[in-house]
Amino acid sequence: MTKQRQLKFGAIIHGVGGNMSGWRHPDAIADASVNFNFYKEQAQKAEEGKFDLVFIADGLFINEKSIPHFLNRFEPITILSALAAVTSKIGLVGTLSTSYSEPFTVARQFASLDHISHGRAGWNVVTSPLEGSALNYGKTIEQHPKHADRYRIAAEYLEVTKGLWDSWEDDAFVRNKETGQFFDPSKLHTLNHKGEFFSVQGPLNIARSKQGQPVIFQAGSSDAGKNLAAKEADAIFTGHPSIEEARNFYQDVKSRAAGYGRSGDEIVILPGIGPIVGRTEEEAERKYQEIASLVTIENALDYLGRFFEHHDFSQYPLDDTFPDLGDLGSNSFKSGTDRIKKEAKENNLTLRQVALQSATPKPQFIGTPEQVADQIQEWFEAGAADGFIFATAYPGALHDFVDGVIPILQDRGIYRTDYESDTLRGNLGLAVPENRYVKNPVANG
Amino acid sequence: MTKQRQLKFGAIIHGVGGNMSGWRHPDAIADASVNFNFYKEQAQKAEEGKFDLVFIADGLFINEKSIPHFLNRFEPITILSALAAVTSKIGLVGTLSTSYSEPFTVARQFASLDHISHGRAGWNVVTSPLEGSALNYGKTIEQHPKHADRYRIAAEYLEVTKGLWDSWEDDAFVRNKETGQFFDPSKLHTLNHKGEFFSVQGPLNIARSKQGQPVIFQAGSSDAGKNLAAKEADAIFTGHPSIEEARNFYQDVKSRAAGYGRSGDEIVILPGIGPIVGRTEEEAERKYQEIASLVTIENALDYLGRFFEHHDFSQYPLDDTFPDLGDLGSNSFKSGTDRIKKEAKENNLTLRQVALQSATPKPQFIGTPEQVADQIQEWFEAGAADGFIFATAYPGALHDFVDGVIPILQDRGIYRTDYESDTLRGNLGLAVPENRYVKNPVANG
Repeated sequence: MTKQRQLKFGAIIHGVGGNMSGWRHPDAIADASVNFNFYKEQAQKAEEGKFDLVFIADGLFINEKSIPHFLNRFEPITILSALAAVTSKIGLVGTLSTSYSEPFTVARQFASLDHISHGRAGWNVVTSPLEGSALNYGKTIEQHPKHADRYRIAAEYLEVTKGLWDSWEDDAFVRNKETGQFFDPSKLHTLNHKGEFFSVQGPLNIARSKQGQPVIFQAGSSDAGKNLAAKEADAIFTGHPSIEEARNFYQDVKSRAAGYGRSGDEIVILPGIGPIVGRTEEEAERKYQEIASLVTIENALDYLGRFFEHHDFSQYPLDDTFPDLGDLGSNSFKSGTDRIKKEAKENNLTLRQVALQSATPKPQFIGTPEQVADQIQEWFEAGAADGFIFATAYPGALHDFVDGVIPILQDRGIYRTDYESDTLRGNLGLAVPENRYVKNPVANG
Repeated sequence: MTKQRQLKFGAIIHGVGGNMSGWRHPDAIADASVNFNFYKEQAQKAEEGKFDLVFIADGLFINEKSIPHFLNRFEPITILSALAAVTSKIGLVGTLSTSYSEPFTVARQFASLDHISHGRAGWNVVTSPLEGSALNYGKTIEQHPKHADRYRIAAEYLEVTKGLWDSWEDDAFVRNKETGQFFDPSKLHTLNHKGEFFSVQGPLNIARSKQGQPVIFQAGSSDAGKNLAAKEADAIFTGHPSIEEARNFYQDVKSRAAGYGRSGDEIVILPGIGPIVGRTEEEAERKYQEIASLVTIENALDYLGRFFEHHDFSQYPLDDTFPDLGDLGSNSFKSGTDRIKKEAKENNLTLRQVALQSATPKPQFIGTPEQVADQIQEWFEAGAADGFIFATAYPGALHDFVDGVIPILQDRGIYRTDYESDTLRGNLGLAVPENRYVKNPVANG
């Protein structure tokens, strides 16, 4: 008898969560985005629910139109390291951009987090969607790289990082007090990478961890993003408006992986969801109405603008058809802006409708614990997801989910009742990657 | 009656500590440099001793000749963030190089650590002494910058970082749930820095902390280093072979500070010491002999080479006069290599003597708890130090010091019996820096 395939769960923590006005909710901790106790409590609650991981998103540019929890928030490496010290099993995954950082430093920071947490680190590799980021990182990088360049840079960057992580074979550190031998020099490898964008000698000054290397996440859903993910990623954080689209994406990426000689099982696909759970359907609906009512139309227009290079949407009549924006947004959140334009056109939506729907969409997963569990199971069994990244839609959402929905999924035999492993790879069902120099000792120095 | 001037203490944690062969000691935890429980225990012991801070050093280049605890160690930002979660009063200071990083990222990471720790972060600003570092950070920076350039880069870098930290006035975040006002736009400031080396727009996406800005440490002791410290630093981590040299340095830096319009009290000067404490003088001497005996002459030659751009000293006869090295070492650890050359010449030392003395020097502070307390008090009262950074000379050294020496200093009324503050600035007796835009609202946007 083979074991039933098991759901995976992550919890994205980004301040109070919910929509851009979520901080106005009467139960919200308004400074949650810089409140360590809040992060600690959320991570520990997710660990109580046997979640695979917590996820910290990031951004490198703000202006006064940015949404509140982006204005003032923890940086991912620091908050994940702090959470490592107050959790013991849950994975710790954070976003870091390959467009505005140095691979030697990033390889070190994630490897160090991986050691501190005893094998629970993960890196969500992004290429920075916002044009503004370049303004905070001059002069070495004068212009925001074009979309295609960003992915070429990212691919080389990952190659360097993974190479650095293998600098030391797993048994390199002998530490023999009698003989005085601290390490075996034949098990230390110097990368000597010289590529188009980077020149990095190595070796890295930290060993591999218990899980070999940090888990690589990818979140891009453009063609270039999907190829990078299919080739290099261990997991994908994605998002889809319907089960059909999610299934198409899932099958697309898993078959692209086959094209790179990988099995589909080597990539865990996790769409983001923000379930609203009530004791009754009516209570869930009331919870949605309560958070939706916090968003003003002015806030919603600002929010929409963010996806389009901070475009000022207040210049258009609210109740006319959504304006033609030409190419605007195509060098930024490309897949997201394409979708917004397409939906507006197909459904003949007004600007007001598009703005409110973007700022506070009604979640697909809403209802009683049983109903939400049904929806999750349906996606899971339809081949639309291997699990989900849970985002908090309203204060208390994580508690409602862990206390209400998780036990149902456990009863149905599709979700763990305890951790299988104490590493992130172990829980995600991913193999420890063999050190490249052990795998292929001839080709490498 | 004015309050007696009080000593300050930091604890540098770098793995097992001691000399390069310290890991061979029978009581040493050989993997301490990547052992989180070891770091946690050391930090908590220092906090029990009411130390002002823990200090994490760093380096960006290794090769197979590097000393053991540099080969495989935690990265400072990550380990400090983890320690923030398991301590509550002690400051958290780490080294980060301005030669191989981006000010926007570094400003964020230290600010985030400052929030996680509720105002306990400090940054030791270094310019990277090792030529090798450039090899790990190509192509954007092709060559290791010359000594003078490195300090000009560092000065501009600090200007940018401090500017970014003031992006938000302390009362900028209104978070009024009724009106929906999250922040006051008049209290958000965009830096718009355009300088010789950096172009950084801002604002930073995190607020100031309880202590205003992270504490700035400086460790360089060259002329350029002293000037940067006198102008910009809150504290200096230094090191001197004698009380006279320490007093000269102390008075030099404090008078340079006056030249920049600052009071000497605004800079806390902390020499590094590695005391050996025994119940008797003989026991202390035995402890020294035990650690010295762990170092082989081959290891000592490698260790010495590290200061001279990894020069191979095994090519010279061991018992001949120390070789003439010309300019070697002058673009690296300049003040250290100058001193080694000078002492070798003045005392007509052999290579063997120089190498062993460098690798395992006999500490100046050695003896019974009373004797070590006397030495500390002498330096403190002679105006050679405001306090000290304690380095572990042998396994158990921190415990011996906290349990044995600290109570004596407390009895003498020159060291706190409890923390005065829960921020690092508060404990170091430093004022919270006023936000530049509040201080000078006309000049800035």
